[in-house]
Amino acid sequence: MTDPDPAWERELLLQLTQYREYSTRGMLDAVPRREPRRYLYDPLSEHLSRIGKSIRPALCIATCQAHGGDPARAVNSASALEMLHNAFLVHDDIEDDSEYRRGLPTMHAQHGIALAVNAGDMMNALSVRMLRQNVPTLGPELSARILEEFDHMLIESLEGQAMELGWIRDNRVDILDDDYLRMALKKTCWYSFIHPCRIGALIAGVAPGNLERFHRFGFYLGLAFQIQDDLLNLSGDRSKYGKEIGGDLLEGKRTLMLIHLLRNLRGGDRQRLMDFLARPRPGREQGEVEWILEMMKALGGLDYGRAASRHFAEAALFEFEQAFAYAGDSEHKTFIHRIIRYMITRDQ
Amino acid sequence: MTDPDPAWERELLLQLTQYREYSTRGMLDAVPRREPRRYLYDPLSEHLSRIGKSIRPALCIATCQAHGGDPARAVNSASALEMLHNAFLVHDDIEDDSEYRRGLPTMHAQHGIALAVNAGDMMNALSVRMLRQNVPTLGPELSARILEEFDHMLIESLEGQAMELGWIRDNRVDILDDDYLRMALKKTCWYSFIHPCRIGALIAGVAPGNLERFHRFGFYLGLAFQIQDDLLNLSGDRSKYGKEIGGDLLEGKRTLMLIHLLRNLRGGDRQRLMDFLARPRPGREQGEVEWILEMMKALGGLDYGRAASRHFAEAALFEFEQAFAYAGDSEHKTFIHRIIRYMITRDQ
Repeated sequence: MTDPDPAWERELLLQLTQYREYSTRGMLDAVPRREPRRYLYDPLSEHLSRIGKSIRPALCIATCQAHGGDPARAVNSASALEMLHNAFLVHDDIEDDSEYRRGLPTMHAQHGIALAVNAGDMMNALSVRMLRQNVPTLGPELSARILEEFDHMLIESLEGQAMELGWIRDNRVDILDDDYLRMALKKTCWYSFIHPCRIGALIAGVAPGNLERFHRFGFYLGLAFQIQDDLLNLSGDRSKYGKEIGGDLLEGKRTLMLIHLLRNLRGGDRQRLMDFLARPRPGREQGEVEWILEMMKALGGLDYGRAASRHFAEAALFEFEQAFAYAGDSEHKTFIHRIIRYMITRDQ
Repeated sequence: MTDPDPAWERELLLQLTQYREYSTRGMLDAVPRREPRRYLYDPLSEHLSRIGKSIRPALCIATCQAHGGDPARAVNSASALEMLHNAFLVHDDIEDDSEYRRGLPTMHAQHGIALAVNAGDMMNALSVRMLRQNVPTLGPELSARILEEFDHMLIESLEGQAMELGWIRDNRVDILDDDYLRMALKKTCWYSFIHPCRIGALIAGVAPGNLERFHRFGFYLGLAFQIQDDLLNLSGDRSKYGKEIGGDLLEGKRTLMLIHLLRNLRGGDRQRLMDFLARPRPGREQGEVEWILEMMKALGGLDYGRAASRHFAEAALFEFEQAFAYAGDSEHKTFIHRIIRYMITRDQ
């Protein structure tokens, strides 16, 4: 990370922008143009217009193209992926009581919990509607397959989310690294990495029996992404990251770094952390959050997280060769290769 | 309502119980038997086991049978309807901050908002999964049609919900009877009455072009149901109704009766109501709720609501003849006919 903005990263961001244009348009086109605007479609469209990284649709379209598929056939499913991702974000922000998203107030901070729960439900409904619209282009069989991919993705993500939320609610201090990895596979890896690749490949004509090659790749890549995301939440630059820094600590989120700290703190310091976690969120103070961050630094927790993220990115690089063995060299394959490096160098 | 428990109503409740057995089993069978149980599937199954009226699946199966269809072919879609209804209930209770549902604490009162939002999302996902499972029995074409019915149902319901929630959030006092009827059509009638009939008929082999006959019937029946539901919320018996009495007033819900009161109160009394509605919910007191109820009684608002509910039930009785003109006499047709009367006599 000596060069803050190397050429490969500039090119990657440019490619991401191009993919994003497709998926943002696809999402906005799917929003009905009718009433009720003020209480539903206007806040929803505003949220969808906020610029995210759009890694999921990009990965889907790039995987399709890398396998010789027509990107035009993948755009609708890629946009549905991003629509579903937005539905998750709106509900996640309510569940975590987060204040900021993509640099602006979260949907429920702006419009209240009631309208935000409902708007998230609508994004969810629209993503299913978008998938139904695959039929004229992709035919009934492939469309049904993609619906099946979404089904698995949804169930896994909601199960992972339940684990994370339950650990916080019951203030579990017995969570191990392995539990975290299993939770992250469910919460993040399936819907963000594995299924976007699987769906892109399916649309390019790869046989359903040949899709497991993406599993380990997407698992490792997703872990690198999630751990880096958790690190940015601890010590990132809010203007770039777009969420409140330290928010995960205020929420009591069981990240790899918090699990490391729970394992390594002793005596009164450990008790102090336990007391912090036992308090309801409004009783957790900013000063305590800074102390926890200091302890993570002092006991090597941040370094542990960084090493883990790098380790999983390297594993993803290795698996990349297997996963994309049948894709010839192309700018799309290069793009996916760059995504792996970006997972651990990104600052937003 | 001189006879509190007439023979036709006893028979109807018995028939409802029989239909409910199918749909409850269908829903519970659709819940994955795996982890995470404690934070997801256990609370979800507990909620699904609570005994509701199950009018939606009953209407779907009965309409199928009334048109000569095989009920076994309708059970899965009927169960998916009830699963979706439960997803709505869990999220509605969060949106309205309701305390009781079917006589027990609401999901978020019991498990917190975070896990409840997530469990509602899972019920939603499971309802889509159930619809996918229609394919082996009903074939791809009819299954896709039913998915389309669900799509329209979801979008309409979420739009109606947005209207109602937005009116409360912005403390709108300019809502007219017509606005209420339009909102109720969207929020309640499509998913509770029109689509259950349409889907049942589709499965029995009624041509898609012949489904509009259920629209006016379901609209009037849904209005009779919703207004009666709002009346029970004002003055029902909590042990039967299963929700907190007067909860809608604490929420500021724009019912036909509240709209009537806003239209008929004058001077200081009107100001007192406006002040009540302008306060955030925790500032609204039980004494004020009782005063509002007294005013509704005194100015004829409750009678206005009762007359409207009866009027729409009569309109539904009239439309019933058109809607079910192609269904010969059968116990299933009789059941649906009884449902109409039940809409205005029910006390739960």
